[in-house]
Formats: sequence, C-alpha cells, structure tokens
Amino acid sequence: MGRLVVSCADRPGIVAAVSRFLYEHGANIVESDQYSTDPEGGTFFLRTVFHRAGLAALRPDLERRFAAEVGRPLQMQWKFTAAGVPKRAAIMVSRYDHCLLDLLWRARRDELDLEVGLVISNHPDLADDVRSFGVPFVHIPVTADAKAEAERRQIELLAGNFDLVILARYMQILSAHFLAAVAVPVINIHHSFLPSFAGAGPHARARDRGVKLIGATAHYATEHLDEGPIIEQDVVRVTHRDSADELERRGADVERTVLARAVQWHCEDRIVRDGERTVVF
Amino acid sequence: MGRLVVSCADRPGIVAAVSRFLYEHGANIVESDQYSTDPEGGTFFLRTVFHRAGLAALRPDLERRFAAEVGRPLQMQWKFTAAGVPKRAAIMVSRYDHCLLDLLWRARRDELDLEVGLVISNHPDLADDVRSFGVPFVHIPVTADAKAEAERRQIELLAGNFDLVILARYMQILSAHFLAAVAVPVINIHHSFLPSFAGAGPHARARDRGVKLIGATAHYATEHLDEGPIIEQDVVRVTHRDSADELERRGADVERTVLARAVQWHCEDRIVRDGERTVVF
Amino acid sequence: MGRLVVSCADRPGIVAAVSRFLYEHGANIVESDQYSTDPEGGTFFLRTVFHRAGLAALRPDLERRFAAEVGRPLQMQWKFTAAGVPKRAAIMVSRYDHCLLDLLWRARRDELDLEVGLVISNHPDLADDVRSFGVPFVHIPVTADAKAEAERRQIELLAGNFDLVILARYMQILSAHFLAAVAVPVINIHHSFLPSFAGAGPHARARDRGVKLIGATAHYATEHLDEGPIIEQDVVRVTHRDSADELERRGADVERTVLARAVQWHCEDRIVRDGERTVVF
Amino acid sequence: MGRLVVSCADRPGIVAAVSRFLYEHGANIVESDQYSTDPEGGTFFLRTVFHRAGLAALRPDLERRFAAEVGRPLQMQWKFTAAGVPKRAAIMVSRYDHCLLDLLWRARRDELDLEVGLVISNHPDLADDVRSFGVPFVHIPVTADAKAEAERRQIELLAGNFDLVILARYMQILSAHFLAAVAVPVINIHHSFLPSFAGAGPHARARDRGVKLIGATAHYATEHLDEGPIIEQDVVRVTHRDSADELERRGADVERTVLARAVQWHCEDRIVRDGERTVVF
Repeated sequence: MGRLVVSCADRPGIVAAVSRFLYEHGANIVESDQYSTDPEGGTFFLRTVFHRAGLAALRPDLERRFAAEVGRPLQMQWKFTAAGVPKRAAIMVSRYDHCLLDLLWRARRDELDLEVGLVISNHPDLADDVRSFGVPFVHIPVTADAKAEAERRQIELLAGNFDLVILARYMQILSAHFLAAVAVPVINIHHSFLPSFAGAGPHARARDRGVKLIGATAHYATEHLDEGPIIEQDVVRVTHRDSADELERRGADVERTVLARAVQWHCEDRIVRDGERTVVF
Repeated sequence: MGRLVVSCADRPGIVAAVSRFLYEHGANIVESDQYSTDPEGGTFFLRTVFHRAGLAALRPDLERRFAAEVGRPLQMQWKFTAAGVPKRAAIMVSRYDHCLLDLLWRARRDELDLEVGLVISNHPDLADDVRSFGVPFVHIPVTADAKAEAERRQIELLAGNFDLVILARYMQILSAHFLAAVAVPVINIHHSFLPSFAGAGPHARARDRGVKLIGATAHYATEHLDEGPIIEQDVVRVTHRDSADELERRGADVERTVLARAVQWHCEDRIVRDGERTVVF
Repeated sequence: MGRLVVSCADRPGIVAAVSRFLYEHGANIVESDQYSTDPEGGTFFLRTVFHRAGLAALRPDLERRFAAEVGRPLQMQWKFTAAGVPKRAAIMVSRYDHCLLDLLWRARRDELDLEVGLVISNHPDLADDVRSFGVPFVHIPVTADAKAEAERRQIELLAGNFDLVILARYMQILSAHFLAAVAVPVINIHHSFLPSFAGAGPHARARDRGVKLIGATAHYATEHLDEGPIIEQDVVRVTHRDSADELERRGADVERTVLARAVQWHCEDRIVRDGERTVVF
Repeated sequence: MGRLVVSCADRPGIVAAVSRFLYEHGANIVESDQYSTDPEGGTFFLRTVFHRAGLAALRPDLERRFAAEVGRPLQMQWKFTAAGVPKRAAIMVSRYDHCLLDLLWRARRDELDLEVGLVISNHPDLADDVRSFGVPFVHIPVTADAKAEAERRQIELLAGNFDLVILARYMQILSAHFLAAVAVPVINIHHSFLPSFAGAGPHARARDRGVKLIGATAHYATEHLDEGPIIEQDVVRVTHRDSADELERRGADVERTVLARAVQWHCEDRIVRDGERTVVF
C-alpha cells in the first residue's frame, strides 16, 4: 500500500488528474480524503491511500512520472510514502514519565506505526525505564550557560537520523536554530485550560479560578513556544474537590492520550500543515 | 452546488472515471469522501460535492450523460441531488414532545436542511405546539382493531408527498406494508443501554442494574422493530442518585440530539446504506 | 422538603451540631454533601436536603432556633430554602435566541425549577418568541449616550422582584452599580476556547489557529467582564472542515446546554461561592 | 485519616448519631457522602473520611465503642479502614496484556492505592512482563478436564492473602465455589455494546450492525457471568471505517481506563453494594 499526499492552489481537475494518473499506473485507490479552504482561490489538500502490486520496486519511476505528468504542471507539493513502514522517531523528555512510557508501550504493542530509536533527556532519571524497552537513552544536561552546546550535541544525534522528533514533556525551550537543523517535524504536547493560564503553576491557578475542565493540546513545535499548528486537543472534567495534584494527574492522563493520537496521525501521514492550522484527514 | 452519491462493486478506475466525468462537464469537486469495504471484491462508496455554474438547468442532461458514460458501464447505483434544496419531511409522533419540538425548532432556525410539511400523531395532545410553528397537524388515532385503517390514512397523506419520514418517538409498530407504501427512508430514534433492556420500563430496569450510561440510537426503520441500520448513537452519564424519572429525562436529551444529528446527515446525503450497516460520510 | 446550605470556618463538630439540630427538630436528612478546603484552617461547606412534615408553617421558628443554637455560635453563613418552590428569574438577552428559547422551553417542560417572569432586551427582535411562552417582554434600548438611563430602567424592573437574573447572551457590559442595585445572583454564559481568544470575532480566530475543541463557560457575573466564579464548562469537537459559521452554531449548542445546567444547579441551591471559585454540590 | 462506611435501614437520626460519635471521639469529618434509596423504608448509605491524630493505636477501641454505641443499636453494617494503607490485590489474566500492564504501571506510579502481590495466569505468555515489575507470576493451566484442580490451586494462593482479586481479561468462568472460597471482592472487566452482542466474536458482529459506540463495563463478579453489580462504564466512538481489529484496539483502551477507575474507587472504599446495584460515592 502506498500513500500520496498533495497540496496546491485549488482549481478544477485536480482530482481527475491525480486519480487518472493512479489508474493508468495500475494503482487502485483504497481511501481518499480531500479538502479545499475555498473552491475559488483557496488551497486544495488531498490524501490518497492506494494499492499497487510491486510498489516498492516501482516507486522511483512512479515518483518521477508523477512529477512530470501531474505534480509540476499543477504546481503541487506532494509526497509518496509506503504505508507499511514505521516512522523513525526520537523522543525528548525531562522528568515526567507519563507521555514517554505511554509512547514506548504503545509502540511495543504495535499500536503506533512508530519505531523509537533514541530517547534524549536533560535528566538521568528515566534511563532504566527507557532501556528496559531496548531503546538507547542519552543524558544531555542543559544548563543556562551551556544551552547552545547542549543543542549542538542534540542536533548531532538527531539530524539526518530520524523522521520525527517527539517532545514528551521536554521542559526546555528549543531555538529556531535547533528546529531548522533537525529539519523534521517536531511534535509537542502541553496542558490547556479554559480560560488559559500562562506561566508557572497553572494547575494551582486553574484550581483557584474553579475551572471544570482541564485539557491538553498536541501541536507542531515552532519557534513560538506552545503556539504552533494544533494537531489534537482533548479535555477531562474536574471538580472543586480535586486538589492541584489531582488536576495534574488527570491532566497527565489527557496529555498522554492526546499525544499518542497526534503521533499516530502523523505516522499515518494524515496531517497536512496549512500555515498556522493543520488539516487532519 | 450539487452532490453525487455512488455505490458499486469495487474495481480499479472508479474515482478516475467519476472525477474525469465531472471535470469534463465543468464541475469542480469541492468535497469528496470514499470508502471501500474491501479493495478486492468489496463494495465501493463515494460522496462528492461539486460546484457547477447553472447546474439546475443542466442537471437532466448531466444525469443522462452520467448514466450512459459512467453509471451503467460500471454498474453503479447513483444519485444526483442539489445541495441547497431542503428535504421535505413528515414527522410521526405520539405523546413525548422532546424530539418533535427539537426538530421543529432547529428547522425554523435553519440548522437543518429540512422542511417539515406535516406532523401525524396518534394522540391529539401536541396539536397546538405543532401549529404554532405553522406546520399542519393531523390526528390519526390508532386502535388495535383499526390499525390497518389508520395505516391506510397515514399512507394516503405520506406516499408521494415527502422525501423522508421521521419517527420522533412514535410508539406504534409500523408494518412492512407501510414501509413499502411510503417508499422513502424512515428514520427512527430509540433509547439504548449497556447492557440492553428489551421490553417495558427499561429505565427502571436499567436503574435496578445500576447502569452508569444511558444512550440513544437513531436508525433507519425496517420491519424488524428497533433493528435497522444504525445511523448515530450517543450516551450520557448517570449515577445511583438518579431516579428512573431522571434517567428518562436525561435519556430524552440524548434522544433529541442524536435524532437531530441523524436527520441532518440524511438531509446532507451523507448516509449510504450498506446492507445492515450505514456508511456515514 | 427543605434545604439548608451552610459555610463557615472549618472546625471539629460542625456536622455533628447541624445533624443533631435537624434530628431534634424532627427533620430527616435525605441528602447531604460537604466539602472542606482544608480541615485545618480552611472553609467548610455543607448542603443538606431534609424532610420534615409541616415544614412551611414551622420554618420561621426553625430558622430562629438554628440561628440561636448553631448558626451564630459557630459563626456560620446559612440559608434555609424550600425545595419545591421555583426561583423567580428575569432573563436579559440581545439578539441571539438559542440560550433564551432553550431556557423558556425547559422551564415550560418543568425541567428547571425556574419561573421566568420577565425578559428584557436591548433589541425588539425576540418579542414575539418570548410572548408566545406567556412571558412579558420589555425592550430597553441601550445607546452609548444613555447607558446609565437604560440601567436605571432595568434596575427599576429587576430590583426586589426576582431571585435570579440570567444573561442569555446579553451583549452589554453591566456596571458594578447595576450588580449592586439588582442585589441577586447574575448568571452569565460565554464562549470559551483552548487557548482563549479575547476580543472580537473569536470563532474566526479560533478557526485560523486550527482549534479542535470549542466550549462555553457559565459563571456568576462580577464587575470584571467574563471573569466571575465558574459554575460549569463544556466543549464540543470541531475539525478543519468547519467554517467559522459552523463553529458558531456548534458553540451555540454548548452554550445553551451549559447555561441550562448552571441555572438548574443554582435553582437547586447546589452552588456555593468560595471567593473566586464555586463549590458545586 | 480513617474512613467509615455504613449501610442500614433508613430512619431519622443516623447522621446525627454517627457524626456525634466521631466528634466525641476527637475525629474531624473531612469528607462525607450519603445516599438513601428512599427516606421512608429505604436503605441508607454513608461514607465518611475523618481525621484523628493517633488513629492507628486507637482504632481497636474506636471500633469496639462504635459497635456498642452506634452500629448495633441502629442495626448497621459498617467498616472502618485506614486511608493510607493500600489494598493487597492479586490479578488474574489470560493472554491480553492491556488491562494487566495498565494496572501494574499505575500501581507503580502510585496512581492506585493498590499493592499487586501476585499475578495468576492460565497462559505463560506474560511472565516476563509481570516479573519486570517485581511482581510474582504463577502459571496455572486450566483444561476442561482439570478445571476443579486448577481452581483448587488458585484458591490455595488467594484465600486469606489478598483484599481484592482483579480479573484483568481472565477468560475462564469462575465457579460459585471459587468466589465463596476466595471470600473477597472480585472485580471483572468486559466489553459492552449498544445494543449488546452476546457470545463469540462480538467486535465483528458489532461492526456488521454498524454500531457507532463501543464500551466497557467493570463490575463485581458473581456466579452469573458478566452480570454482577456494575461499578463503572464508558464508551468510545467508532465509525464504519474501523475494522473489527481496530474496534478491538479501541475497546482495549476503554477497558483499561474503566477497570483502573473501578479498582481505584474500590481501593478508596467508595463503592457500597446495594443488592444488584452499586452506590459509588
């Protein structure tokens, strides 16, 4: 099975062109989703899953022909991927283990199309947990003085080696330089509230205000902290009886669920970025 | 805007054929969903929303050409509809008003692509409520002796006049003859529990068992009572403190929400029947 | 049935004192909830529902004795109410009808222990809808120049006449003077997002950011706009396919549900204010 | 902190008697929930959490006095427990690991007031996973011929050693004799659907019927398979696109969440049995 993800300026005939191409090259469309921000002058997005016997061998040729016959003439951005191949990911984490362990566990149970090849942490605490899954753990301390040096070591390990970096409660801000050097999507998870409480100790402050829902947001990291394109969100109900600790524990449950969903959708090539938004097929 | 809904045996080239047809006839695909039960030997379903200037005038010709060029060659079932035209519906109801009033209200607020042209009830109680919405109300009593006569009068009013019949808590069983004579889809709503409690007084029995969730199921009516293809379901949380009356009231809230969703999806031609299942695009 | 709601500094023996008082005065406790922010030096809250034959006649005497024997010695704030008596409410509304109609409808169906005695609006649009429920409608225009005069007329109608004022999407800011003069609780509803979007056009801005959940918050109005103690919150899921209009429509559904819950809890004396929070029993 | 859980025939003065007893013995009530099935002739339930310095040493005396002064005079069933002491549990499991690993993990993170002292399985598969948590694993095969012998060995390990037995997807029916011999509560988890599908292959059959929600139910095991008093239920949304495998995976996620909630509520002494129902405080 193969996947083809396309985006371009919307205009008549795109679906016809793509589907004719696939048909003429012996590929049968199994699943297809499309979305246009505006049929007149908007952006068009398409994700197609297709079946073609012998795809692995044919793929270079298929990609070349698609570029020539469809992609370039219609000024598309496009990407072919193989459906059965898991994404190679590195996870960055600090001290909270709930998101990390949930990902490692789900990956081991084959719930995620994900192969975790490395965990990097600015603390040594979770080394044993990670290694018991057969995954390498590297401790790179981050100090205020030597932040650039720490990022240099992180980039050394990450750049070119992974398809995806996951921040599973990694509590350090990443520089624009880091994001550019790593050059693959970086998925982050953080807590969310209605209304929002920026800054330190948000659970205690949410409690003081008497919020009834606490949530989590998974998004692609950008240089603007906690502000990239949102992939997924969810909430859980709390009451006046819940302590700030209990809010944090319930928040942790939502965080790991939301992050796992976001990662799986990414691994299935379901997410297309549209400026500050995402299209999730 | 037009919609095209298609189902047929799955085989390569269906999407290519449909999208080329639409492209060649000046239609731009705005939205498209497809699903195959099995790429090898399964059933293929497609719902496309397209934009074509002057569609109303062109439609007869478009339908004829589609039949000749695509529909018959690929042995499809297909249907063109106009996206802006509300479905004409009749509602059947007994004494509970919550589903009925919710539909009338949402239709008036233009939340539903629905024009309610008639309400039929086996009780006179809701006449004033219905007429205050400017909708005709006809009281057709149903007695054990004269059930066939009542169905005859119902069919007289319904057959040929409506696109859709909605059973908004209509507490009488409908015969296979009625369903055949009315000859349009009939949507029904009923309560659901985990586990299920068949028969009378289900709320009291659910309470005795201590259920924590009560729900509602909207489905297309078939001659097998409460057993047609499911369109939508939802649940609400209850506790040991809720009386059987309270369970019923909460159940009523879920019922009206679930029914409204099912009706709207039907009006948007989002639902395709697949034997005992539905595909909801 | 009667209700007794109590708050005071926490100390040993409060429950014993209250329950002995009720027992000695022939009242049987049917339901009781309590909560302490901190057993050492915190605030204690108690809501008790009790059954006492002939309560209406006995109540003045019961209240006097409670004050002397329990309330004043333990420095409590307390309130006795009769469980069967609906709260008298006035609703203020602008042009959106969804919250208003939902309240009127639920009150008519006896889903709320609420008697709506008056609707005030700064627009004339909803007069017919309101009067069809047999509820008086008063149009008080609000202009930038004559805002104080409008508030004077509102206060004239409200002060002393109602137990509760509900802002069912009333789009004018109320002054601290208004809140003081009305002198009863004022419940407000507004939309909520994760993250929050202050200011105009929040639905369009939430859409640009790609939020996946939109919500509503019901709270007691204070002079700080949209910032009083939260009573209830809920959210609904949205996708990249939903237009800003659709977000608004889904938001409206959450708003009316959340407001109805908050109003009913208030009518059942379930909510106790605790500074900037609420305790919801 | 101590807990007192009480049930008895409802009558005036119960709360007064219990709260006076606690007050007179220096205990401060921190949290208290009560419920009566019917103030006239029903059953009364109470759960109280109280603070008393030096409770551990005083407890035998406190229990004796409570029996003499309150429990026996009012014909109560009652139980004192210490809030800080985890319940000792054994887990029985077959081959599915999701519920087992979730419990072990949450117990290790101190999310559950639970100490897992033993895992018994009729298959050897999960031995390594269990032992990596430092928990003993015993493989007791169950064959049709030697079922009674297997139960004898299970009882030998369980009876008298644990406060609680958890069936974390244990796929063997337990005899009434087993339940009597083990003599502690047994919590079971199983999948639930609307409508329900008894027998083998329920996910495939639910899929054929097109259900939109699948769920899980945690209950106390009785000799009637899957029919004991319900503790907790929850559901997750599915669509026509989900394969029977995907339904099963999503079902697994609900099962582990629902089971963990039920176990934690049990460990906090929040659940009181009321015939075929539970009261969950």
